[in-house]
Amino acid sequence: MTTNISEQSGVTCADVDAEGRDVLRDLYADWSQIMAATPDLTMRLFRSMFDEWHQPTAEPEGVTYREDTVGGVPGIWCLPLGADTSKVLLYTHGGGFAVGSASSHRKLAAHVAKALGCVSFVLDYRRAPEFQHPAQVEDGVAAFDALVSSGIASRDITTIGDSAGGNLAITIALALREQGKQGPGGVIAFSPWLDMENKGETLATNNDTDALITPELLEGMIAGVLGGTVDPTTPLANPLHADFTGFPRLYVTAGSVESLLDNATRVEERARAAGVDVTLSIGEGQQHVYPFLAGRSALVAEELEKLAAWYRA
Amino acid sequence: MTTNISEQSGVTCADVDAEGRDVLRDLYADWSQIMAATPDLTMRLFRSMFDEWHQPTAEPEGVTYREDTVGGVPGIWCLPLGADTSKVLLYTHGGGFAVGSASSHRKLAAHVAKALGCVSFVLDYRRAPEFQHPAQVEDGVAAFDALVSSGIASRDITTIGDSAGGNLAITIALALREQGKQGPGGVIAFSPWLDMENKGETLATNNDTDALITPELLEGMIAGVLGGTVDPTTPLANPLHADFTGFPRLYVTAGSVESLLDNATRVEERARAAGVDVTLSIGEGQQHVYPFLAGRSALVAEELEKLAAWYRA
Repeated sequence: MTTNISEQSGVTCADVDAEGRDVLRDLYADWSQIMAATPDLTMRLFRSMFDEWHQPTAEPEGVTYREDTVGGVPGIWCLPLGADTSKVLLYTHGGGFAVGSASSHRKLAAHVAKALGCVSFVLDYRRAPEFQHPAQVEDGVAAFDALVSSGIASRDITTIGDSAGGNLAITIALALREQGKQGPGGVIAFSPWLDMENKGETLATNNDTDALITPELLEGMIAGVLGGTVDPTTPLANPLHADFTGFPRLYVTAGSVESLLDNATRVEERARAAGVDVTLSIGEGQQHVYPFLAGRSALVAEELEKLAAWYRA
Repeated sequence: MTTNISEQSGVTCADVDAEGRDVLRDLYADWSQIMAATPDLTMRLFRSMFDEWHQPTAEPEGVTYREDTVGGVPGIWCLPLGADTSKVLLYTHGGGFAVGSASSHRKLAAHVAKALGCVSFVLDYRRAPEFQHPAQVEDGVAAFDALVSSGIASRDITTIGDSAGGNLAITIALALREQGKQGPGGVIAFSPWLDMENKGETLATNNDTDALITPELLEGMIAGVLGGTVDPTTPLANPLHADFTGFPRLYVTAGSVESLLDNATRVEERARAAGVDVTLSIGEGQQHVYPFLAGRSALVAEELEKLAAWYRA
């Protein structure tokens, strides 16, 4: 290769500490610029790039980690010192079902576990396009079942995820109900991406303020996970078409300026209409999955306190 | 962007557990294939890709982390539970002075700290080509000085690094001596890259077995860090030309099949000739910086035990 020394650096610790800067938006803008400038970007390098998703998050202090395989699914345990190890967050990472990993979300999942006083397990579920829907849901259910078999009470498991992983946090709970099993005690979805028909209003109205998400990007991800064969209104792929009767307590966040905002508001309406205990928290001026700013943002610290109060209730 | 779904996945936890596979070589072969196929790969994406360097390393258990700035240089503390916090490994990461980061080397530096019973601080020093030699050495010296000012005894600091960071572990000690300061108690270099004249014999003799390093790749890195203005025989850039009189105890490793093997053997000879207490450990059949296999390789577990015995002596 030519070393082709040019362009801006990747974000390192040095870059993300500046007070008041939205380093998540900066990272998204940088990725968007690269995607625009590199129309032939391969999935391999797309995955490299999105593994930088951990960079806006500060290293949480007082947390240890352990690799494991749970129900056949590999992943990373985030173990805050002094946490209640009988209470588990089953964390499904975002990235359009295709990119992102346990590594990219380790710090975020650790911050949430620490705030809630429990442990988290971040799944490296099978990704699209190599594995299409419902492989991702199946991996989540397999891990959930294995936790229960290991002696964790179902009600002490919370399914949680962001973006496509927020979809999974919801659909894993729906799938468990379909299978007649006791589901999680609660479900948490940060900026969930649910609408596989790709027709939300905020795709247009927030298009200028969202630094990452575009309808075209989502279209490619939908093609990858549904493979052109799965109906985009399938409830376990698109929970905006699901029956939420009897669904667990649900906590949903979204940024006010993000294109997927109305995925959060629509699922909140649908769940509430079915009688679900649902909390919606909108981060004013925030981008997609703004909890990635954990450890660097006062607003996210407040959000995590609010989430912890909800969790303890 | 087009989603361009194709090619192999990035390495995740799922891929690196297979018994007996050299997942470090596999990762290097994958990077080499990408570099060959992408002649216009930008430094920005080159850095994304090399941040995957952590993937062959297992998450070390029982270690917490903390971001910090030491002597003006940002980085990550690796804090094994129960470690002696008065003894510090000052870790400079590899990556040709241009790529790699505290994040890419966090797990490796944590494994070493855990094995040695101390803590490590992984520096995000200023990288080339934005910053040329001696910026990297200066950052290391600034961090060393700040540790001493904070009350850590010089003899209780070990400078340590891999590849270009192994060069820095040595040149930081040389620079401290030049400045009339008490240097580190010891120096550890994993597969150090020292020869800025790019003329080692093993570049040719191990070219077929080394999965990553080529003379052309090194040439680009040299141009980046020396900028065509610094003499490649400058001792603080190329310690194969340094005077090792009075140098601290030195521990050097290299893989037997890597192209930079004779950087290790040449520095060992030169240091020994100057009366330095030097240990050279060659990993049979191993690639560049094989300690990256920590937590997955019996050979690396043995190497870390040997290193710990050296450290305690």
